Amino acid sequence: MNDASVDLLLTAGRVLTLDEQNREFSDGAVAIKGSEIVAVGPAAELAARWPQAPRLDTPHGLLLPGLINSHTHVAMSCFRGLADDLPLMSWLTEHIFPAEAKLTEEIVYHSSLLTMAEMIRSGTTSFCDMYLFTAQVAAAAADSGMRAWVGEVLYDFPSPCYGELENGFQYLEQLMAEYDGHELVKITVDPHAVYTCSPELLRRLYGRAEKHDALYHIHLAETRDEVAGCLEKYGKRPVAHLDALGVLGERTVAAHGVWLEPAEIELLARRGVKVAHCPESNMKLASGISPVPELLAAGVSVGLGTDGAASNNDIDLFGEMDMAAKLHKVNKMDPTVLPAAQVLRMATRQGAEVLGAGAAIGSLEPGKKADCIVIDLQQPHLTPFYHAPSQLVYAARGADVLHTVINGRLVMENRRLLTIDEEALTLKMQEIQARMAEKTT
Amino acid sequence: MNDASVDLLLTAGRVLTLDEQNREFSDGAVAIKGSEIVAVGPAAELAARWPQAPRLDTPHGLLLPGLINSHTHVAMSCFRGLADDLPLMSWLTEHIFPAEAKLTEEIVYHSSLLTMAEMIRSGTTSFCDMYLFTAQVAAAAADSGMRAWVGEVLYDFPSPCYGELENGFQYLEQLMAEYDGHELVKITVDPHAVYTCSPELLRRLYGRAEKHDALYHIHLAETRDEVAGCLEKYGKRPVAHLDALGVLGERTVAAHGVWLEPAEIELLARRGVKVAHCPESNMKLASGISPVPELLAAGVSVGLGTDGAASNNDIDLFGEMDMAAKLHKVNKMDPTVLPAAQVLRMATRQGAEVLGAGAAIGSLEPGKKADCIVIDLQQPHLTPFYHAPSQLVYAARGADVLHTVINGRLVMENRRLLTIDEEALTLKMQEIQARMAEKTT
Ligand SMILES: [Zn+2]
Ligand SMILES: [Zn+2]
Repeated sequence: MNDASVDLLLTAGRVLTLDEQNREFSDGAVAIKGSEIVAVGPAAELAARWPQAPRLDTPHGLLLPGLINSHTHVAMSCFRGLADDLPLMSWLTEHIFPAEAKLTEEIVYHSSLLTMAEMIRSGTTSFCDMYLFTAQVAAAAADSGMRAWVGEVLYDFPSPCYGELENGFQYLEQLMAEYDGHELVKITVDPHAVYTCSPELLRRLYGRAEKHDALYHIHLAETRDEVAGCLEKYGKRPVAHLDALGVLGERTVAAHGVWLEPAEIELLARRGVKVAHCPESNMKLASGISPVPELLAAGVSVGLGTDGAASNNDIDLFGEMDMAAKLHKVNKMDPTVLPAAQVLRMATRQGAEVLGAGAAIGSLEPGKKADCIVIDLQQPHLTPFYHAPSQLVYAARGADVLHTVINGRLVMENRRLLTIDEEALTLKMQEIQARMAEKTT
Repeated sequence: MNDASVDLLLTAGRVLTLDEQNREFSDGAVAIKGSEIVAVGPAAELAARWPQAPRLDTPHGLLLPGLINSHTHVAMSCFRGLADDLPLMSWLTEHIFPAEAKLTEEIVYHSSLLTMAEMIRSGTTSFCDMYLFTAQVAAAAADSGMRAWVGEVLYDFPSPCYGELENGFQYLEQLMAEYDGHELVKITVDPHAVYTCSPELLRRLYGRAEKHDALYHIHLAETRDEVAGCLEKYGKRPVAHLDALGVLGERTVAAHGVWLEPAEIELLARRGVKVAHCPESNMKLASGISPVPELLAAGVSVGLGTDGAASNNDIDLFGEMDMAAKLHKVNKMDPTVLPAAQVLRMATRQGAEVLGAGAAIGSLEPGKKADCIVIDLQQPHLTPFYHAPSQLVYAARGADVLHTVINGRLVMENRRLLTIDEEALTLKMQEIQARMAEKTT
């Protein structure tokens, strides 16, 4: 590290590092060189060390690590609000599936970019996505400058993206080759779920994940029907079924994890499986309430996910934190469950662990990637200010984010997006909306 | 009505009237004269009728009735985030009560004004408040231009505001006299709860409410402890206890209504009692889940309330709508429960009925008071746009409100508050925060 030059000094009235010691600084700063944080500390100290550094000062700001969305489907923004409040089966078969059958590469690219605009605006710097036409999702992530784990969903039936299943394996290999060593985008291996993938497919994909040292991202135990169907078909509940297939390991990211029994939680913990908790989607679709306090107590890393815009309908981790903190309190009839600081960790440090990136992101520490956000504290709903985690989880909202930095690059400054042309994108989405409405309602 | 002059023509790309027929207009407008709406319809038509009218045009806006917060404690913003995630009794006795003992008229005035800034910014135009030092709450409402129902809380023990109980009655009468016929502020009669008010006090206050034709606003069946204590002390559950005292009627606004049995719901419906549902507070304090679908099915008018900032911690009805819609779906394991349109009505038309103001506010109709808001639709998280209620409940947030009009007066334009000096208020709140932190932690 050359003391003579850093690329950016971010200063703020308060800095929340979320490091091991949970250090906070008043009038603090983060020094960034290239894609990395080189120092975190008092602003005066860092300014003295790098007097020539370009600065972005926010005296009324709170600087913290960027948020991490551990399960989403970014391209589904084109279905936002298209069909809500319906029984699950009619929602899926009469609205979502027919709309998905009309997806094209172009629609997926722009819809993904739209969600990235929404995420950058609401302080999310990393996300883990599973969907169709993943090459376009990956391209949008690279174009917007977001950190992304993306995978093409595979299942037993033909896909609107790659057609027959065998082509899906080719598609996956191409993605792996194309993004090998990419600075921002990592490809994951994504079997859809136990009810859509044969045991053979689940096992074969785990082999691919191992070969590429990639995450194995799967929807798991989301609904009671999934559990009942799995029991009926395989004589085992989903967790036992996957374990018998040898696909539960440290690279396994289980999205939802709603219907889990104590022995299953213990097994997930023992295997090192991670869970992406999606409270808003689980509530809106009436899937159920995940045993998050029990998962955390068992030592499972639990991240927060928004799921897609069709079942949320916004992709804002601030709302998700608030919902998670409150849902589990009333569910357990105990106001001490999931305190704000713990929920904030789920959206940052633990989210990083879920994605196998605990050493790279999730806190503000020298040597980590410079993924950080600055919140505007000078607003009525954030006044007064006693404790940062309470304020962030229970009162702050996505619109309070002023600046977003990803991989050392300023992607939003004073709420102006620097990597996405919002006006052009809005026009494009109006066109896509017209096509969607026409074809599906 | 003089066709030759209106005071303001509000136009927007979409207008959602929430009237009986749920009419919506593309490129619509509302014409305002004095404090009232004189016409609602296509913008071109109204513009032709009043070509000289001052206009506020928002082509990318959605114009709808202002939201109604049916239960809150606006002065509690000074405790926002002071103490969270604690067991209920230690939260109350070690943090909230000691802090409340230090309240002064000055603190209540400024803290109330702060919440009003937050409410105007997030699209709330009316609220129903119960707290201490109500003269200051009322003054802040009048100063900020908000429509308010406010009452001084009474209970068996001495109050930090008025001292001995008998003084409370005098305080109430003074408020009634001072705000008699006030355009914006109505005084309510507010016994705190069954566990803090003797049967005698409950009955006596109901007499005052009848005398002044005022609302009778009380916390009811909020926690299991309240029900158990009431059973033990009076041999009846809270609803039966109040009914035996003759204080359940059309003027009764029951805040929370969490622990209600089917027969109690039927009784509330029969008596015409209204309920203020506060999902975020009930979740955060782990009070329980109110049987809202059953209340609505029984014909009870249910509004939405935020409760105070100490138990929420923001005073934003958009978040409250989202939470209500999702909470009851997962609680009933049915995604069709509380559809978006119904939740939006709870925050508007039904909220108006809860406050006995169904003829005056809650929808955009000629002859009603001009309380309305305009949402900025040109944002990634509100794109695409298929159905207004879905978008408002599941995706919109308080920060999306551009303009707020109350009683015909523009109180926020393009997110700039016109009735509150935010800078001076922020400085004042920093001083109050320092006093609170010093005295209670
Ligand atoms: Zn999903
Ligand atoms: Zn209350």
